[in-house]
Amino acid sequence: MPTSPRSAAVRPRSSGHAPVERSRTTLSPESWIDAATEVLVDHGISQVRIDVLAGQLGVTRGSFYWHFRDRDDLLQRVLLAWSERTTRQLTERLASVHGDPRQQIRDLISLPFRGRAARRIARIELAIRTWARRDEAARRAVEASDRRRLDYHEQLFAALGFSKEEAAQRAFVLYGYEVAESILHGQGTPGEKKDRAAFVEQLILAKIRRP
Amino acid sequence: MPTSPRSAAVRPRSSGHAPVERSRTTLSPESWIDAATEVLVDHGISQVRIDVLAGQLGVTRGSFYWHFRDRDDLLQRVLLAWSERTTRQLTERLASVHGDPRQQIRDLISLPFRGRAARRIARIELAIRTWARRDEAARRAVEASDRRRLDYHEQLFAALGFSKEEAAQRAFVLYGYEVAESILHGQGTPGEKKDRAAFVEQLILAKIRRP
Repeated sequence: MPTSPRSAAVRPRSSGHAPVERSRTTLSPESWIDAATEVLVDHGISQVRIDVLAGQLGVTRGSFYWHFRDRDDLLQRVLLAWSERTTRQLTERLASVHGDPRQQIRDLISLPFRGRAARRIARIELAIRTWARRDEAARRAVEASDRRRLDYHEQLFAALGFSKEEAAQRAFVLYGYEVAESILHGQGTPGEKKDRAAFVEQLILAKIRRP
Repeated sequence: MPTSPRSAAVRPRSSGHAPVERSRTTLSPESWIDAATEVLVDHGISQVRIDVLAGQLGVTRGSFYWHFRDRDDLLQRVLLAWSERTTRQLTERLASVHGDPRQQIRDLISLPFRGRAARRIARIELAIRTWARRDEAARRAVEASDRRRLDYHEQLFAALGFSKEEAAQRAFVLYGYEVAESILHGQGTPGEKKDRAAFVEQLILAKIRRP
């Protein structure tokens, strides 16, 4: 993530190839995507503008177009990067670390508590969900990510012998709990959070009589 | 909620008592609060500005000051109105309708599915939660509302005989499920949602062995 001090001064664009503070060879598309994500979280989607980002990154507006067609192209890449980082990598990593579905469920339950990284991911996700309430492309990206995460949860419960229907329902409750822990992060002491995570692990695996 | 067409033209303020399209006797503080809430949901907190709202409502900027000290005063009233409408009234209504805690739990589970009203409440709540990630007053209001709702859930489980600790944990899981249903509203068909709500009702009341 870029940590450079913000600068409102956008360099004059004398030519598309004018030398800039950081040349286009050092400023990757990822720098623009990270900067856009930061602005989205701190100021909302309406402030994610090429001129604002160029000013922050200390480069010309024109250098943006080396990497992106237009603002919509950048926004699409922001969604793609979020989806890649938080969903695909996560599920691949978890599946490779533990074959045991119970241990994978335990890992999922612990995700919201992983310190500053978890808090940062939660802030980005909330900003994207808010954006998704008024933007069709963002909505599709969020729903696809949620769907993939739910499918992953469902596989774990299916591997433990629950029916397809019940695995899907338990998956929703467990994933919902993770989402809620991240949204309601101010509720409860660290000790209470630890105890309720242990309770959720028991509850989500408890057998219940179906009518 | 105001439905008047948006107008960027703010009438010139010839005097603090100048006649306006709608006089200050017809434009209540609630009109400003509702308009501010709409703008918050549609454009984010940075766009909740006195000039924008006055333009939308078709009144002078000056008429704002009949009801509010400044923008911060308005924002505080937006938080208060949200908290009043969604939390206090809700818990009072539910408690008066059904004495039976099981029936109250059933009602809580059905809340996220109550059509357009529920969707609208969910959009407002998400916008306020996003704002609360970067504003201290909003954060305090959101945490206090969540706390009150959790307390209400906890009372129901305590009334069913669960220990204080377990009642608090079940309250968190159930309230978390409601939050998740509202955030993940795109997941599942109406039939699947109905079935998982029935599943949650069983799961949340299931006895489990504690170690």
